[in-house]
Amino acid sequence: MNNQKRKICFVVTSHIHYSRSKLVLEMLRDDERIELQIVIGGSAILPNYGDVEDTLQKDGFNHDAKITMNFEGGSHVAMAKTTGIGVSEFATVFDSLKPDIVVIRGDRHEVISPAIAAAYLNIPIAHIEGGDVTGTIDESVRHAVTKFSHIHFATNEEAARRIVRMGEDPRYVFNVGCPAVEYIARNDFQASHELVNRLGVGDVVDIEKPFLMVMNHPVTTETSRNQENTEILLQAVHDLHIPTIWFWPNVDAGTDSISKAIRIFREKRDPHHMRFHKYLPTGEFIGLLKKTICLVGNSSVGIKECSYLGVPVVNVGSRQNRRMRAENVIDAPFDKEQIQGAIRQQIQNGQYPQSTIYYQDGTSKKIADILSTINLYTQKQFCD
Amino acid sequence: MNNQKRKICFVVTSHIHYSRSKLVLEMLRDDERIELQIVIGGSAILPNYGDVEDTLQKDGFNHDAKITMNFEGGSHVAMAKTTGIGVSEFATVFDSLKPDIVVIRGDRHEVISPAIAAAYLNIPIAHIEGGDVTGTIDESVRHAVTKFSHIHFATNEEAARRIVRMGEDPRYVFNVGCPAVEYIARNDFQASHELVNRLGVGDVVDIEKPFLMVMNHPVTTETSRNQENTEILLQAVHDLHIPTIWFWPNVDAGTDSISKAIRIFREKRDPHHMRFHKYLPTGEFIGLLKKTICLVGNSSVGIKECSYLGVPVVNVGSRQNRRMRAENVIDAPFDKEQIQGAIRQQIQNGQYPQSTIYYQDGTSKKIADILSTINLYTQKQFCD
Amino acid sequence: MNNQKRKICFVVTSHIHYSRSKLVLEMLRDDERIELQIVIGGSAILPNYGDVEDTLQKDGFNHDAKITMNFEGGSHVAMAKTTGIGVSEFATVFDSLKPDIVVIRGDRHEVISPAIAAAYLNIPIAHIEGGDVTGTIDESVRHAVTKFSHIHFATNEEAARRIVRMGEDPRYVFNVGCPAVEYIARNDFQASHELVNRLGVGDVVDIEKPFLMVMNHPVTTETSRNQENTEILLQAVHDLHIPTIWFWPNVDAGTDSISKAIRIFREKRDPHHMRFHKYLPTGEFIGLLKKTICLVGNSSVGIKECSYLGVPVVNVGSRQNRRMRAENVIDAPFDKEQIQGAIRQQIQNGQYPQSTIYYQDGTSKKIADILSTINLYTQKQFCD
Amino acid sequence: MNNQKRKICFVVTSHIHYSRSKLVLEMLRDDERIELQIVIGGSAILPNYGDVEDTLQKDGFNHDAKITMNFEGGSHVAMAKTTGIGVSEFATVFDSLKPDIVVIRGDRHEVISPAIAAAYLNIPIAHIEGGDVTGTIDESVRHAVTKFSHIHFATNEEAARRIVRMGEDPRYVFNVGCPAVEYIARNDFQASHELVNRLGVGDVVDIEKPFLMVMNHPVTTETSRNQENTEILLQAVHDLHIPTIWFWPNVDAGTDSISKAIRIFREKRDPHHMRFHKYLPTGEFIGLLKKTICLVGNSSVGIKECSYLGVPVVNVGSRQNRRMRAENVIDAPFDKEQIQGAIRQQIQNGQYPQSTIYYQDGTSKKIADILSTINLYTQKQFCD
Repeated sequence: MNNQKRKICFVVTSHIHYSRSKLVLEMLRDDERIELQIVIGGSAILPNYGDVEDTLQKDGFNHDAKITMNFEGGSHVAMAKTTGIGVSEFATVFDSLKPDIVVIRGDRHEVISPAIAAAYLNIPIAHIEGGDVTGTIDESVRHAVTKFSHIHFATNEEAARRIVRMGEDPRYVFNVGCPAVEYIARNDFQASHELVNRLGVGDVVDIEKPFLMVMNHPVTTETSRNQENTEILLQAVHDLHIPTIWFWPNVDAGTDSISKAIRIFREKRDPHHMRFHKYLPTGEFIGLLKKTICLVGNSSVGIKECSYLGVPVVNVGSRQNRRMRAENVIDAPFDKEQIQGAIRQQIQNGQYPQSTIYYQDGTSKKIADILSTINLYTQKQFCD
Repeated sequence: MNNQKRKICFVVTSHIHYSRSKLVLEMLRDDERIELQIVIGGSAILPNYGDVEDTLQKDGFNHDAKITMNFEGGSHVAMAKTTGIGVSEFATVFDSLKPDIVVIRGDRHEVISPAIAAAYLNIPIAHIEGGDVTGTIDESVRHAVTKFSHIHFATNEEAARRIVRMGEDPRYVFNVGCPAVEYIARNDFQASHELVNRLGVGDVVDIEKPFLMVMNHPVTTETSRNQENTEILLQAVHDLHIPTIWFWPNVDAGTDSISKAIRIFREKRDPHHMRFHKYLPTGEFIGLLKKTICLVGNSSVGIKECSYLGVPVVNVGSRQNRRMRAENVIDAPFDKEQIQGAIRQQIQNGQYPQSTIYYQDGTSKKIADILSTINLYTQKQFCD
Repeated sequence: MNNQKRKICFVVTSHIHYSRSKLVLEMLRDDERIELQIVIGGSAILPNYGDVEDTLQKDGFNHDAKITMNFEGGSHVAMAKTTGIGVSEFATVFDSLKPDIVVIRGDRHEVISPAIAAAYLNIPIAHIEGGDVTGTIDESVRHAVTKFSHIHFATNEEAARRIVRMGEDPRYVFNVGCPAVEYIARNDFQASHELVNRLGVGDVVDIEKPFLMVMNHPVTTETSRNQENTEILLQAVHDLHIPTIWFWPNVDAGTDSISKAIRIFREKRDPHHMRFHKYLPTGEFIGLLKKTICLVGNSSVGIKECSYLGVPVVNVGSRQNRRMRAENVIDAPFDKEQIQGAIRQQIQNGQYPQSTIYYQDGTSKKIADILSTINLYTQKQFCD
Repeated sequence: MNNQKRKICFVVTSHIHYSRSKLVLEMLRDDERIELQIVIGGSAILPNYGDVEDTLQKDGFNHDAKITMNFEGGSHVAMAKTTGIGVSEFATVFDSLKPDIVVIRGDRHEVISPAIAAAYLNIPIAHIEGGDVTGTIDESVRHAVTKFSHIHFATNEEAARRIVRMGEDPRYVFNVGCPAVEYIARNDFQASHELVNRLGVGDVVDIEKPFLMVMNHPVTTETSRNQENTEILLQAVHDLHIPTIWFWPNVDAGTDSISKAIRIFREKRDPHHMRFHKYLPTGEFIGLLKKTICLVGNSSVGIKECSYLGVPVVNVGSRQNRRMRAENVIDAPFDKEQIQGAIRQQIQNGQYPQSTIYYQDGTSKKIADILSTINLYTQKQFCD
């Protein structure tokens, strides 16, 4: 009816991405100035990673388009082709939906595709979580996406400063805090022993007693080492004889060798005390985080969400290299003894105090307000 | 035989790109430390834009792969899809050729495709001509490509400074001058009256008498105005009653509306004194540049090549916005009177002195030397 | 509301295809049992070939999706890639629209794409105009599409028989006559001298006096000869000194060499008496057909529409090889004298009586009735 | 050197396809009249399905190109997109390799892609195993490929007759027998207890004692039933308490639901007596076939290879519908009791006599001879 409404198109390309953006999506949906469009695609629609269509519907969202873009095989070529076909597919979708702004988030390889498509269609791009530094190909992708984007929602001060340094217009760079952290701050998530042990495979883990959590993703720039590193991590964790909930890696070059290492380990060692999950509903997952005595691996969850929750983290390897961290993180290389030493140290230390380096009050509201009112522009210009 | 040789893969996606890189290509081909691979694609292989396969062969080069990627229609969607399919195609080719370095040049939309493909395959990227500022989508593409690249050959000091500012490692940023300018400095190109008037369509233009040249490309971020702007430019130039050689636009979103404006103008006005070219061999083209009393339009040739040649240039519109220029350039908006005024002023002024803001001695040799000896790395890291 | 309605998705991939299907589309739109979906794509949305979106809107149709799929360059590779990307794009669209039947028509290369996409999505396919025999790659494509299709609307008895012979279920093969012929039978189309001479380029042609029409498309299986053949045809027609309206070829491998031949001829010979059209509205086009003293070339229009109109036709070369024809057609090879001889013979003969080999009363109604009531099936089975 | 040699390009898109074609490949490689080109792609290069590059190399073959084309997700859309991108990729490869003939085999969805690509490039196509009738989408794909192909190697008389019926030129239709059957007739394959139990997961199966084999692939036209049908089959087989070697399904729409059913069954039931294989080297696999007391499932191996070996087969469901069979096959629907009854009946019956309905002496030699000497043509023509 009211065609004055801004059409804001939010792109969801992974399940965790959806959870981390849920508050923003609710704000946008409920904002009268805005017509919310949702496009789902990438690994968010792969059957092994949880059915995002179902989750969206339960949460009261509709999607306007669905994009099949992931090539099989876990190779670098497959990842590049996924990106390329993604550009082609998002171009068709954006041309049909004609949004005023496209909102993308993060650094995964599925995010460069909508960025390029929107840029060529002269649609302004808002990017959440630019300016961070990490390892892997994500480091290149994240900054390239910044150079295609028009509105920047950094999650911390350092990142905002870096975005400006890259020549972006300071009037369009906002440090609003991390929506994922606000999401856990605003909800009282609890894990259910029953659900955790109904989903996944392996031993039953009593979540009321001490347990470890592991999230270990591939490092795309070191693919030859992913399988070996995973074996080291499996042995280090297993030999501690502490009940463990282990999460399967996300879809990236190298995923298959990590999965293979896990499968072989399970077949050969028949590990006790360990349970393996491909996917848990977000609330359950965060509920678990609050209970674990230590999160091990290389997920950004350890850096961001856990800084606020005060969960002890052993961050392994180069994937989160140089990312800003709170005191809850101890780094370790892929070495069995050093990993075990760091875990023992974290268990001894126990819970850390809450850090707010990634937290601000009202993150999602700020994002929605800015998106609905800011002056839009198309032609980018390097700000010297 | 000697598998110690570095495999350097040079990507050629447009005809002018090839000419501007010819000296570098010769250096690389003749360097014993290097095995040169050439991939052609994009508009370089479209029949209307000159047969690059022929030209390469005449110049003693072979190509290792050929990539068909351009979608028809001149729309934004077509441009985005060209980019996306390009990523997919380059991934296949690089996976087969397995180069040690991929070399790309410039800012056209066909350059982001090989950059992304190489990045995902963990192949180091050398980028020629990063750090410049311009208008159109090229402004975003150029800087995004910088963030994917590992070795940077800037053509001027300002550009080099900007690349470092964007977080690139200063040890990998080199101001080597512009290969295109070195190319014209090192050759004594002459145009042939006979050839110029055998190719193309329209009136015969006597190139020994004063004549104008026009190169007017689409502005992708202002596509709705391309046709009208072209009409203004056509009228402004036509009504001066000076013999004119006009070059068809390159392939970009908006090309079709520019072409349409030219076709309609030709049919309706049957313009005298004007000759229209889709393509001239590079040597002929530069020979013409040396003779013209003024180059009009929005090509980077006016900014770069003409700075060295001292050719008077009327730069029209926003396409070369804020690019560093020598004194040979007068800017004008798309307004008939102002364009005509600027042309008259340039004719009156005549030839300018040579500028070396884009020139260095030995540009191509420096590039070849660096490419064959520099330490290669894959994992990028933002340099604060 | 009424979700019992059958969702019928009609694919329009070229302009002439749209015109030929217009009556069917009207029937489907106005049928209460049916929810009509329209997908446009292929050359139908290329700017040089007439804006099908405009035409649809004027005629009271909406489209549900638009597919950019044509690669530039006119090469065989470009044609294959167009087909491949088309499959990928149609899959996305059909998955979103979820039609009960997909309706496709003809033999052009853009028709195999929706056929494959629909087949893999288990959507029943209705194919109009299967079973005909012709030359070029169309001969293969048409029959392959038959083997993917579930409901067959043949335009003549021979074609219906051939479809059954290929193993299709006779209960799903219908000879309904040609919708294109019904379309001209049901409308009193007239050409306007003013419009014909406002559009296109070249000499004014007085359509109230005798004139020739030429439609000459590429033969994809003989691409090396397309340019030379076009030159022969141009000379043969030009040297007759009869006013001529010449239509640009459609998009196929070889289009560029035909276009090139025409452009060179126009530049060099500055042909009098000739007018060149890229596109005319269908009604105008058929109005012209009724007036021409002879249609020359290799278009199926000469075989189908002209059989009913009794227009004398000189069919040149192999493109319509062995297609069933009425007495209005004389065949000639690409030989100047033989083409001229055949044209002279046809002029002398004058108008032929109406033939109904491609005509039935109520074609479109039959199609709509069958589509809305027939039992649908997915699993095909060779009928021995 | 000798550029008179015919360049024959053999396409390998699955592992089993490679094994079944090995003798032909050896003939072609060793034939002096022929230059053999090999293109690998599709599921043949997916890590979970055995490394075809390794196998080729061990067998003394090189590949000329490798094509990544499979989309992830096991959905119909993924399958259609795989086909589409495959067309695009094969077009690039064939354009580069410029073969005189492309040889393809079978009916899987990866076979239509090279067929279309070759057809648009005017390269004659030789198709092995056309004319058979089956269920699933393969039924459409196989016959569509026939309509694109120029030389037909049927594996049995019925199939040859059907190909001619479809309008193919009888002079180009050859019943040469099945290369896969010749392959097992010409080799004395034996399975190794040690290797069979080192690869795969699950219980150890003593292959010197009676055991069942199961191969159950998805039915693409009945995807909603694949999971349930697999559960039925799992229970039927499991409850017989006979040691069983079960093979994972191949990549097709529906694969994921079959895999899911197997995974859930393994987790919940911890089945004894059962071993699960993703991949076995061909020789081992055929060695096992010779020893099994019954092959259960819907693989064509049961119809073709087992007819010659005399192995008792229980063919379940519609996938091999109406395919010509020898007396060794008993059909059963997806019903627990009927499957169990049929298996018991086959066990009781024991080994069948050898059938030669799919066997001819010298199949591969005939194929190589015809490929190297037959007159080639491009333009197809329906033979009435």
